[in-house]
Amino acid sequence: MRRVLAIDIGATNLRAALVGEDGEIAELRRTRTPERGILKVVGDLVEDLARRADAIGIASVGPLDIRRGVLLNPPNLREPGEIDVVGSLGGRFGLEVVLLSDAVAGAVGEWLHGAGRGLDNMVYLTFSTGLGAGAIVDGRPLLGARGNAHEVGHFVVDYRSELRCGCGGLGHWEAYCSGAGLPKLARRLLRERGEVASRLREIDLSSGPMDAATIFKLAREGDPIASDVVREFSRIAAAGIASVASAYDPELIVLGGSVYLNNRDLLDGEIAANLPEYSLGDPPPLAPAALGDLSPLVGAAAAALGEWRPQVRRKRDRRAPPAPSGR
Amino acid sequence: MRRVLAIDIGATNLRAALVGEDGEIAELRRTRTPERGILKVVGDLVEDLARRADAIGIASVGPLDIRRGVLLNPPNLREPGEIDVVGSLGGRFGLEVVLLSDAVAGAVGEWLHGAGRGLDNMVYLTFSTGLGAGAIVDGRPLLGARGNAHEVGHFVVDYRSELRCGCGGLGHWEAYCSGAGLPKLARRLLRERGEVASRLREIDLSSGPMDAATIFKLAREGDPIASDVVREFSRIAAAGIASVASAYDPELIVLGGSVYLNNRDLLDGEIAANLPEYSLGDPPPLAPAALGDLSPLVGAAAAALGEWRPQVRRKRDRRAPPAPSGR
Repeated sequence: MRRVLAIDIGATNLRAALVGEDGEIAELRRTRTPERGILKVVGDLVEDLARRADAIGIASVGPLDIRRGVLLNPPNLREPGEIDVVGSLGGRFGLEVVLLSDAVAGAVGEWLHGAGRGLDNMVYLTFSTGLGAGAIVDGRPLLGARGNAHEVGHFVVDYRSELRCGCGGLGHWEAYCSGAGLPKLARRLLRERGEVASRLREIDLSSGPMDAATIFKLAREGDPIASDVVREFSRIAAAGIASVASAYDPELIVLGGSVYLNNRDLLDGEIAANLPEYSLGDPPPLAPAALGDLSPLVGAAAAALGEWRPQVRRKRDRRAPPAPSGR
Repeated sequence: MRRVLAIDIGATNLRAALVGEDGEIAELRRTRTPERGILKVVGDLVEDLARRADAIGIASVGPLDIRRGVLLNPPNLREPGEIDVVGSLGGRFGLEVVLLSDAVAGAVGEWLHGAGRGLDNMVYLTFSTGLGAGAIVDGRPLLGARGNAHEVGHFVVDYRSELRCGCGGLGHWEAYCSGAGLPKLARRLLRERGEVASRLREIDLSSGPMDAATIFKLAREGDPIASDVVREFSRIAAAGIASVASAYDPELIVLGGSVYLNNRDLLDGEIAANLPEYSLGDPPPLAPAALGDLSPLVGAAAAALGEWRPQVRRKRDRRAPPAPSGR
């Protein structure tokens, strides 16, 4: 039986597993994403697994250039510059490597084996440290010129915003609607509502860790600012989801990522309540990721197994018009 | 020689022409879009041309349902409800009808015969009464579930906005960046800057026609509010263009539509100056539409001639997973 090594390079966690033709996931491993030397850590994590695999499928945070098999200075990794994933891991293990963005891999996973099975038009959205998406349109996963035709986290949701995204852009969706963005949203609300008592204010003043998990926990306990932060997050999530629906005309939007999946009790109702206000026509149907946090790993495995393959197109000669087919 | 009738149903103008296999445009006609009875007016306009054509290609304002060949209550037409374009005109003239959104048709026109010739990834953006786009991704025009995978005018560019789009949605790009949206932007700036003298204020107070052309004209004459309106328009245009680049990863974005093409002297510099602030990485290259305001007509003709055909996909059975190809 063919067996592939699937790797998920996330901003917070690295995951890897052997996956068989039958879809069986074996020897799932996980470790924290290091600040430097990511490819060395990944290689060491999977050293013995790679010896038993026939190919490698990698889902990674973007942006990337799939034509060259590299990551392009990803804003959600601490390691700067280009990271030569395909050259490095392919060379080390002597195996063919298929590289996808983690969000496209998640979309492929949910499309072939999850909530979007059998649909020709669907989007997978992942709310984790960053915010990403993969889109299946007209029966095919979108890639785009460099493999980034789904960087919806960088949609501008507030053109008057002073808030900069990790990538440097102004008013990007991800700057608000992600694990990394939530504390920025919280600090803005703390400033705007200076008179309201909140545990978040104490944490902020003591320079304690104001992370997404803490904010959701306090909201669940009824903290007024934390509750408002979560409501604002849901509102901005709804605005972005409406834009995604306008971009790709999906039959279904699948929601995943740890920030979403761990906090559905607080998010689902608010997102659904806000979505119609921002939507063109009927809001799109939403569903949680059927594969949980393994969607990207399953998609990377499917690509390495050849269930679906990214076709990296060579550039055509711009001077020659395409031959008309109907004459 | 095969000859097709190409029709462009716009919010402001109806255009029609005979187009030969050689791309030659003959008997170009134009009339104002009526408030009611659009299909009757179109039919009467092209009655004699249809008798000499082998097929009809139609580019129309959206949203539409290409599976059923109808327009779905388009916010930029005054005629309400569903408009059965394919059934009505196909029936009247006994010809095959291919229906596309005007923005997709414009994209196809520029892709096959204009500024995007030979590119596998490009977007055509049209700024006219409304704001629309068509996207070519991975060598194919995107359609989506209902043929609307490019309704970028309904991207939310300001989630805190109170401004409603023609479709009813909050903070949509088109509510600002279109011929219909510019006067709303002007009224907002007039309110915010109550002390500044401006010809626009006199027009507003006298309930005169504050249309896009007037605003651009006054800006060209140095009116302070009109100049600020155009600068704000350019800034919001840049924010939306950055989102479009993030959605589709194009090698080129082609800009068209009368509001853009007639005012490039005021817009090009400002858009280019604002674009980097909103972009993920390098901003996308921009180019004006090579076919001017005929891009949609050329694209509709190309579709009717079969140079490219929208493949309307039947829905697959959701219960059956797609057959893996690589086993």
